[in-house]
Amino acid sequence: MSGDIIREESMTDLWNVWFSELHQNRVGLTIKVKRLLYSGESPFQRIDILDTYEFGKMLVLYGSIMITEKDEFIYHEMLGHVPLFTHPNPKEVLVIGGGDGGTVRETLKHPEVERVTMVEIDELVVRKCQEFFPEVAGQISNPKTRLLFADGEKFLSSTQEKFDVILCDAADPIGPAEVLFQKSFHQMAYDRLNDDGIFVTQSESPYFHQRTFKKLYENLSRIFPIVRVYWAYIPTYPSAIWSFTFCSKKYDPLADFDRERYNKLQLETNYYNDEIHHAAFVLPNFIRKLING
Amino acid sequence: MSGDIIREESMTDLWNVWFSELHQNRVGLTIKVKRLLYSGESPFQRIDILDTYEFGKMLVLYGSIMITEKDEFIYHEMLGHVPLFTHPNPKEVLVIGGGDGGTVRETLKHPEVERVTMVEIDELVVRKCQEFFPEVAGQISNPKTRLLFADGEKFLSSTQEKFDVILCDAADPIGPAEVLFQKSFHQMAYDRLNDDGIFVTQSESPYFHQRTFKKLYENLSRIFPIVRVYWAYIPTYPSAIWSFTFCSKKYDPLADFDRERYNKLQLETNYYNDEIHHAAFVLPNFIRKLING
Repeated sequence: MSGDIIREESMTDLWNVWFSELHQNRVGLTIKVKRLLYSGESPFQRIDILDTYEFGKMLVLYGSIMITEKDEFIYHEMLGHVPLFTHPNPKEVLVIGGGDGGTVRETLKHPEVERVTMVEIDELVVRKCQEFFPEVAGQISNPKTRLLFADGEKFLSSTQEKFDVILCDAADPIGPAEVLFQKSFHQMAYDRLNDDGIFVTQSESPYFHQRTFKKLYENLSRIFPIVRVYWAYIPTYPSAIWSFTFCSKKYDPLADFDRERYNKLQLETNYYNDEIHHAAFVLPNFIRKLING
Repeated sequence: MSGDIIREESMTDLWNVWFSELHQNRVGLTIKVKRLLYSGESPFQRIDILDTYEFGKMLVLYGSIMITEKDEFIYHEMLGHVPLFTHPNPKEVLVIGGGDGGTVRETLKHPEVERVTMVEIDELVVRKCQEFFPEVAGQISNPKTRLLFADGEKFLSSTQEKFDVILCDAADPIGPAEVLFQKSFHQMAYDRLNDDGIFVTQSESPYFHQRTFKKLYENLSRIFPIVRVYWAYIPTYPSAIWSFTFCSKKYDPLADFDRERYNKLQLETNYYNDEIHHAAFVLPNFIRKLING
């Protein structure tokens, strides 16, 4: 062995790859990457799946983090359980987008739900999530799930079906999801809801995307009689604070929280609970000012 | 002019400096820097002040962001107003650390406060904040402020004074602030409080610093009869979620919130409000589990 050349670093030391998601090229989250697992291109977008040291596996669409194994529970619990514990009998649920399946998974924890229709434009996202994120995507194959590969807006404009709850689990308003942030889409969602229906949409960061957030709130307030914003801390989303806009024809998420069903279901959640259900609607002043200003 | 060599980029394009604060070399916040304003070394630590595109001026101690112009209000409002609207008559307030002066500024918004004693170990931090962050540090020269340059633990162990409220505005538990996270220090704080006194300490990130957070909670629960955790979203702190541990001999921050004084004072805050005062104590399940587990 003597005479061999000894490397001073191990191969691990030399692998030093960082994924960064930047906001306006001024600030961002940077994450050390363990391995590149998949990189592909669908008819709609670039899709990457990375394994990371801090957050486990991570799905990235056109450069934006969609989910990570470690923190996806927050977004999906908060998008799903707030409306589903407000509506007293959510039988028919529609998820627009949400190709990773996390929202479907949380929705199906409610035994009242008889069917969840998932309308995702990009089949490749679904297939890759089923392959790489089985714990997120597993309920896509549940018999209660009806999976349609279609444009969410076109589906809503052509269907005659009605829903109790519609969840807009859209990617950011660049790329294929842009249409899901338009008022015309929100009007269609209103029209496809039953008379006591609830529509919730993710509404971007109230810190980094204030114009989008504010515009969404204004548009939705012109359509729905009850509109309330709630928020969650999500480590891997831009700015790490995220908003949801709750829109309803009849039920108020604060007055009509269904404590009996909540207590009976004994959900095992890692973020959501009955107190968070209410506290999430309490807005820091800087968000209040965006809405009222 | 013909024959001149034309640069293809402007000078601005070429300046591409990023500050990153990494957690365990796995994940971090990265911020584009406009200008380096100051870099120095005190007897205690390295001090840097940077101007950034997203967050304005930024104070960095031994590589950790302490404050930025754009978001410092959140930390200071939440550290100051939660205890000061719980204690019915906070005359004597002690701030340990907090060399930037932001906590003193919020404290002095309460007319009941007759004196705030600020015990900061590092005079250079205070002087540089007075120079570069006048809107944060301005109240350090208020006649009600008594400024002492001393080690917080030594001050507490030698003084005979008593306080109504003690706020531990410590840097991270590496470097000179380490002692402020020890149980012996917390016992001294208890001893220097009046019989109805309140102690609040920043208690790190409940996402990234779970061991420190949990240990602090356990230690403080052995000393104070009332211990409650609250949290805030702070964009530039590691993980962007931050905890505060509220410790009290008599008053409960939820039961004893002083609505009358709150309504009368008409504070102009950007994060804190009466509802946030309560909602901040509602913990997501992953934090609940840290405390109860």
